[in-house]
Amino acid sequence: MAKMAMVVMWIAFLSCCGAAALGRQLRFNPKSGELKILQVADMHYGDGKTTPCEDVLPRQIRGCSDLNTTAFIRRLILAEKPDFIVFTGDNIFGFDSTDAVKSMNAAFAPAISSHIPWAAVLGNHDQESTLSREGVMKHIVTLPNTLSHLNPAGAVVDGFGNYNLEVHGVEGSRLENKSLLNLYFLDSGDYSTVPSIPGYGWIKPSQQLWFQHTSSRLRRAYAAKPVPQKGPAPGIAYFHIPLPEYASFDATNFTGVKQEGISSATVNSGFFTTMVAAGDVKAAFTGHDHLNDFCGELSGIHLCYAGGFGYHAYGKAGWSRRARVVVASLERAEKGSWGTVKSIKTWKRLDDKRLTTIDSQVLWSKTSNRKH
Amino acid sequence: MAKMAMVVMWIAFLSCCGAAALGRQLRFNPKSGELKILQVADMHYGDGKTTPCEDVLPRQIRGCSDLNTTAFIRRLILAEKPDFIVFTGDNIFGFDSTDAVKSMNAAFAPAISSHIPWAAVLGNHDQESTLSREGVMKHIVTLPNTLSHLNPAGAVVDGFGNYNLEVHGVEGSRLENKSLLNLYFLDSGDYSTVPSIPGYGWIKPSQQLWFQHTSSRLRRAYAAKPVPQKGPAPGIAYFHIPLPEYASFDATNFTGVKQEGISSATVNSGFFTTMVAAGDVKAAFTGHDHLNDFCGELSGIHLCYAGGFGYHAYGKAGWSRRARVVVASLERAEKGSWGTVKSIKTWKRLDDKRLTTIDSQVLWSKTSNRKH
Repeated sequence: MAKMAMVVMWIAFLSCCGAAALGRQLRFNPKSGELKILQVADMHYGDGKTTPCEDVLPRQIRGCSDLNTTAFIRRLILAEKPDFIVFTGDNIFGFDSTDAVKSMNAAFAPAISSHIPWAAVLGNHDQESTLSREGVMKHIVTLPNTLSHLNPAGAVVDGFGNYNLEVHGVEGSRLENKSLLNLYFLDSGDYSTVPSIPGYGWIKPSQQLWFQHTSSRLRRAYAAKPVPQKGPAPGIAYFHIPLPEYASFDATNFTGVKQEGISSATVNSGFFTTMVAAGDVKAAFTGHDHLNDFCGELSGIHLCYAGGFGYHAYGKAGWSRRARVVVASLERAEKGSWGTVKSIKTWKRLDDKRLTTIDSQVLWSKTSNRKH
Repeated sequence: MAKMAMVVMWIAFLSCCGAAALGRQLRFNPKSGELKILQVADMHYGDGKTTPCEDVLPRQIRGCSDLNTTAFIRRLILAEKPDFIVFTGDNIFGFDSTDAVKSMNAAFAPAISSHIPWAAVLGNHDQESTLSREGVMKHIVTLPNTLSHLNPAGAVVDGFGNYNLEVHGVEGSRLENKSLLNLYFLDSGDYSTVPSIPGYGWIKPSQQLWFQHTSSRLRRAYAAKPVPQKGPAPGIAYFHIPLPEYASFDATNFTGVKQEGISSATVNSGFFTTMVAAGDVKAAFTGHDHLNDFCGELSGIHLCYAGGFGYHAYGKAGWSRRARVVVASLERAEKGSWGTVKSIKTWKRLDDKRLTTIDSQVLWSKTSNRKH
């Protein structure tokens, strides 16, 4: 995207919404009682029109570029009308980006122009262009409509882009000041910096302790007066690199496909254990492995991939690029008002003619959940 | 041990050594340039003479009790003359202890009366008598000659008995104020309190972050003037429950025996990764599985068992109770003085007639170590 266009967009944004949009509180929809999240994994954005597609069919190659990635997001936004969009890293493919700022502006442009709040975390390729990981995350948090944060205030944590967002009850309802769904975002790193450990990065003790403290704090707030709730509110976590526990499944116990190995860190840093122990997270959503798009459940937590999204990313010709949708639904309370979260569902959308929906499944349901 | 005896011992201790002994600094021996550590795992002490032995040969049963455990420690102390003794949990077997204080006093008595400094961590059975885990650890830190701590000052960590000890250079040498070997002690917990996770406890993010910060601080101190040293000083870690990574070995790549499964937590909490990332720990020493006594190396860290020690603990009749010895040796510097740690060796001692030494091996050597 040209610099001028971005400036125009900024002005339009500032004049339309001001600080209110930047600080806006995520809430459940008053009509549907739902919150719908669109997850976009691995856009791998480069320089736009001049950056070609990878792994598409021969008949799709001509004219195929990053703009196909942009078009796919735009179509999805129109079709799904999500309340929130999450980009789970490798938002840009730094090696093929001449200018990280321009690539990011272009990659996030469909989200920005939709005026839908969005958030992003870092992958392992975002820092390979003109900005460091810190620089990339610092730029992201300045973009219009994003609810991303650089890092939690008052906590020293490893990485950049560790934060949480609360989803409050319907405005005007009894639960309007209560977080009914908690979203956690973590930086799963890029590569190991430890000589004796090869491979990808991992979620460090400092990040896990921050997560644990945050989860505890949210649990106390959920149980607090004036409308105390039992147990923790359900939570979901977004980060880039799958955990070693993603390798626990096969076709008999997951929904979706596994067409490549699980490219987690070569060591287990314990974040799965920390999530299970915290007790609120019902599902984790990652990207990184473009040819895996499954959800499998272990110890009460669904471990899900979104599947590859970007056209300048490795994929499989003939196997549609895809995205994951998550919907949390409130239960009906007395007098037509809304209660707390009743269920969390997911499905995927393919970048075909009809944006085909596949693999719909319930990830968590308040009534049937016997584990917590 | 009778209460009176303990009182006498306390008075003897206080009159002989006072605060100096309590606060004494571990140092390498000026003559040998060594520090020798005796590890005693799983004493499982009960009520003393009335608490019978388990899993001994028919000819050994008569008159066999906790006192055999005591006798074994006494013989080992005389034979090895260790500079430091570490008790790695299940020091008492709480279910068969009428009074936790009495059982502990009796269990640690040989160490106390030897005037050798000692330290202890908790296992999963120490809290099953009349004291909680906190109560047990609070009692341990009051005992004569112990260098145990309840927890680090200024850090909020899970569990009780997380601390580190420095082993300084020879008194009067250039390195007398430098820690040349770092000892870490952690509480690996007892049992999971998370409903969806069965089994044993694990080392939590708060403990790992404390370990990480401590390791970093020690590395900086080691590199600091006036006698700056390269890299980190080697470290070793003591705790009770083996890590899941202990299951990485078979007879082809360990020294010792594996006669039962690895009873680690059913989840991986990442402490192995945290140790590898810290880069200073060369070996971890646990107990818990009485029939395993091996050392295996993974990513530059030796994962070692001590083997079962106590007679009121499950074992294998005819397979001797045993203990592990670790010796760190300094290299000779100019003019006959001592330098930094050159090697870390280990062996085991069996409770047979000759206290047979088995499985001697070098765990780490400064010159041959290419991993760090």
